[in-house]
Amino acid sequence: MHGFKFYEKATRTFRDRSLLSKILIIGTVSGGGLVALSDSGTFQNINGGSAQECKKKKVVVLGTGWAGTSFLKNLKDKSYEVQVVSPRNYFAFTPLLPSVTNGTVEARSIVEPIRNIMMKKGMEVQFKEAECYKIDPDKQKIHCRTTGSSNLGGKEEFALDYDILIVAMGARANTFNTPGVVENAHFLKEVEDAQRIRRTVIDCFERASLPSLTDEERKRILHFVVVGGGPTGVEFAAELHDFVVEDLPKLYPTVKDFAKITLLEAGDNILSMFDKRITAFAENKFKRDGIDLKMGSMVVKVSDKEISTKDRITGQLSSIPYGMVVWSTGIGTRPVITDFMKQIGQANRRVLATDEWLRVEGYNNIYALGDCATINQRRVVEDVSAIFSKADKNNTGKLNLKDFQEVVEDICERYPQVELYLKKKQMKTIDALLKNAVGDPKMEAMELDIEKFTNALSEVDSQMKFLPATAQVAAQEGAYLADCFNRFEHCEKYPEGPLRFRGTGRHRFHPFRYKHFGQFAPLGGEQAATQLPGDWVSIGHSSQWLWYSVYARFSPLCSKQVSWRTRYLVVNDWGRRFIFGRDSSRI
Amino acid sequence: MHGFKFYEKATRTFRDRSLLSKILIIGTVSGGGLVALSDSGTFQNINGGSAQECKKKKVVVLGTGWAGTSFLKNLKDKSYEVQVVSPRNYFAFTPLLPSVTNGTVEARSIVEPIRNIMMKKGMEVQFKEAECYKIDPDKQKIHCRTTGSSNLGGKEEFALDYDILIVAMGARANTFNTPGVVENAHFLKEVEDAQRIRRTVIDCFERASLPSLTDEERKRILHFVVVGGGPTGVEFAAELHDFVVEDLPKLYPTVKDFAKITLLEAGDNILSMFDKRITAFAENKFKRDGIDLKMGSMVVKVSDKEISTKDRITGQLSSIPYGMVVWSTGIGTRPVITDFMKQIGQANRRVLATDEWLRVEGYNNIYALGDCATINQRRVVEDVSAIFSKADKNNTGKLNLKDFQEVVEDICERYPQVELYLKKKQMKTIDALLKNAVGDPKMEAMELDIEKFTNALSEVDSQMKFLPATAQVAAQEGAYLADCFNRFEHCEKYPEGPLRFRGTGRHRFHPFRYKHFGQFAPLGGEQAATQLPGDWVSIGHSSQWLWYSVYARFSPLCSKQVSWRTRYLVVNDWGRRFIFGRDSSRI
Repeated sequence: MHGFKFYEKATRTFRDRSLLSKILIIGTVSGGGLVALSDSGTFQNINGGSAQECKKKKVVVLGTGWAGTSFLKNLKDKSYEVQVVSPRNYFAFTPLLPSVTNGTVEARSIVEPIRNIMMKKGMEVQFKEAECYKIDPDKQKIHCRTTGSSNLGGKEEFALDYDILIVAMGARANTFNTPGVVENAHFLKEVEDAQRIRRTVIDCFERASLPSLTDEERKRILHFVVVGGGPTGVEFAAELHDFVVEDLPKLYPTVKDFAKITLLEAGDNILSMFDKRITAFAENKFKRDGIDLKMGSMVVKVSDKEISTKDRITGQLSSIPYGMVVWSTGIGTRPVITDFMKQIGQANRRVLATDEWLRVEGYNNIYALGDCATINQRRVVEDVSAIFSKADKNNTGKLNLKDFQEVVEDICERYPQVELYLKKKQMKTIDALLKNAVGDPKMEAMELDIEKFTNALSEVDSQMKFLPATAQVAAQEGAYLADCFNRFEHCEKYPEGPLRFRGTGRHRFHPFRYKHFGQFAPLGGEQAATQLPGDWVSIGHSSQWLWYSVYARFSPLCSKQVSWRTRYLVVNDWGRRFIFGRDSSRI
Repeated sequence: MHGFKFYEKATRTFRDRSLLSKILIIGTVSGGGLVALSDSGTFQNINGGSAQECKKKKVVVLGTGWAGTSFLKNLKDKSYEVQVVSPRNYFAFTPLLPSVTNGTVEARSIVEPIRNIMMKKGMEVQFKEAECYKIDPDKQKIHCRTTGSSNLGGKEEFALDYDILIVAMGARANTFNTPGVVENAHFLKEVEDAQRIRRTVIDCFERASLPSLTDEERKRILHFVVVGGGPTGVEFAAELHDFVVEDLPKLYPTVKDFAKITLLEAGDNILSMFDKRITAFAENKFKRDGIDLKMGSMVVKVSDKEISTKDRITGQLSSIPYGMVVWSTGIGTRPVITDFMKQIGQANRRVLATDEWLRVEGYNNIYALGDCATINQRRVVEDVSAIFSKADKNNTGKLNLKDFQEVVEDICERYPQVELYLKKKQMKTIDALLKNAVGDPKMEAMELDIEKFTNALSEVDSQMKFLPATAQVAAQEGAYLADCFNRFEHCEKYPEGPLRFRGTGRHRFHPFRYKHFGQFAPLGGEQAATQLPGDWVSIGHSSQWLWYSVYARFSPLCSKQVSWRTRYLVVNDWGRRFIFGRDSSRI
């Protein structure tokens, strides 16, 4: 054998080193560079069966999205036997999905295998790649089957028992039963959707380049329609515009002038959940870019080549020929959740309701979080007599200020709408509210009966808010729930929550409280809009850089959710795109 | 708007710079790093129509594999109007396909969009994403249709006229009509095949992890069978073994012991085209690794769960349950080529035959190269009288040494088997061959008649060789043909080829001659085997490093074929795999 002394030495060095040394070597070989550390973690066998196991509580987690993964990542207590069931064996960083549709970021860079996450925990966690199609809360069982995407033919079915069930299955795209949407439109919820859209865009350009077509046909095929002006739709339209303007004209010079993007929005504005300045900026930018914005357009039908709309005001119907439609109008409930809701008496609800501790109403051992559920806040008006009698310790039928001050913190924690109401009315404390109700006596001598107390609180429920169905909310819910699970025994002994107004003692945990860190909307052309809490708005190139750096480094939104591996890959992708442009291979 | 002075400045700097500066900036920001330059190239509009165009010859290239792409990359003469037709709008660096099956390298890293390549040429090149389903050599037309993978529904059909046709459509996997192969086995010829195999491997592990299966079932699902012990099959088995041993046990601890790889080979050895030392090393390594090698096993049937084999010697039939079969037993002819062969009277051939200038026999304006064609070398025995009379200028019926020496170079060029025969017989020049034939007279006085001349050359045809169907051959053929096209007019005036023995004058070009640069066979575990010309063999870790560096830098095999972008991405992938391991997400 002929020798390559240098190579052999280098190889030996490589094989003998630890991970850290490998990184250093690679760093040196590559002359420095963008190199990140992977989370290190030792593997622990989760297969062994000890006697202690029998006592462990079986926790089944349904779903590996933001909520489920966040729960898994934050769970530390080893006294649970955790099983995760999901048709996807990975977590996907969904805010970057629109970037995947044009190759700014690769699909594989935004996913993290769930088994990697589990492995690093060194806990008893098992994963089953399957879809839960039925929840049986009475028998404490879920029924699952493998998904159709399997190459192995046939569907495998099985059931799992649980002691505690965590439902975090997310939502599906909402078509509002519009005919033809499922058959003809693309959604943008899963990684596969983004990959399919990317292939379709290239397909449209390739197809339009064929010699046998008329220019009319070319125009149709290169007409991209986005339905829905929310953050996903807007970001996708912006990314698509960048792709179509920056990369494709060079490659498809003969057809580039036929390409057009239209955004249909049923409301009056795009990005209506953002500050008006952002909405205006985005609309102007889109108009300058030549993206056709059609407000007040409700889609009534999608055929294979045409999309039919109805003007919300004039009622006028019109048809637009298209090559690709991306449907992004919000979320709907999955069939398995609808079925579960029927079983537990929530048939008339739009979405699965939980209490403030994320427990499905009526079931102490079923939690629901993320997009598949919503927190059904308790109304003050329903509990007002319970609150009164709890505060009125001596049963005098009157509350004085001292009585009240003892429970005020608990009220504010249990009913967050009280605080929001005060804020809205620009009152500093609840005292002012009561003062208003009794008509300004001296505070010290103030006394309220139940009637006045009810009056004082009668309007606070108007400030109840539903949390938006965002990744941020889901991730915080998952982390919150894991934290409760981690401290279950401790809090059993030393409950830390507010007073149980309708029962005795205190709640075991603080109720879930969402902390809003702000919202990004990338608008294409290296520009983005940011809205942070406190009316802090930033728009333009600086925001895009903020987005890059927030994502890559110090984001409180995602720091726990995103591994170093994913970060490295995404930053790498951005660099690659910057140097080489986006790839137009149809794979 | 709140200001981020730093970000804004940085953004402005980015937007205002050229590509090179961008790379420098990224390099600086990332502290150096693995950064490569992309080929720069200015875009030229290929759409305009000038009067001169009418005179341009229409060249249609079918296929974007090694042969077609190599032709395109090397074509410089702007007097052709080139149209490329292929169902794949990219070139794929196929030697890395086995690495894609387990994520050592990403699919997108080994492809290069054909339109990028064309754009950089600044030539009149057009691409049509379609499949040619019929060649009509009489009307000089090809018929095409779009492929089924389109999201746009319906098939578009069109025809193209050509003045010159270049057939470089490659081959398809050869199933030898074994029942069930197409339905149940995976091939490894296209990028999509590799991606599908990757998903299937993960699928098998996920499926085996489900609770409802018996251990027998688990064993079946995790049994991976590779059919064919050629370089592709061996490399795939090795890569799969690395994946199954290095990455998956940590993630699938409960089922890891069920996994098994079997390699079935109908012959007596794997890698039979390599040196015996390499074959022995590979077989030993596979045995140590626990890969089950079954020699002399011919597959007779593949059902959905079992593969049936017959022992070549004993004739014994047996059935093996499997989870995934990868079929890699060689190549067959595509239907469109078979049909074309029937039209041009080559129906009884196995593969499309061309002459030594890559022209399809009988058609001066159709060339065929790569795996879809083979060079049908002219036999000396057929031309011996023509050679004799050409050499015998004075028609004396006798050849003396001087006559002969005038044509000897042409003979050796036109009939390369002569040189191979001399080498085999350890003769230095053709004189020795003739000397043998006439029975050792004095060289100077030697004279041969036609009979003796025929005797002398009677055995040389035994040394005719068919070229292997490899990427190296295809790439060299493409480059050769482009070179001929580039110098067509010059060589028309000043022909550079050998004498036309059966005609007058000289051939326009030198015939195609293959130059073998050696062969690699990665064997897994950072080991590889290399066989270079001149019996130079290297096996082991050093070879793997040779493979890395040959690929990444200075390979004469692929230096022209592979762009800096692809190189950067692949090296990047290797680094990523090295640090983070392979990704097991099923996408």
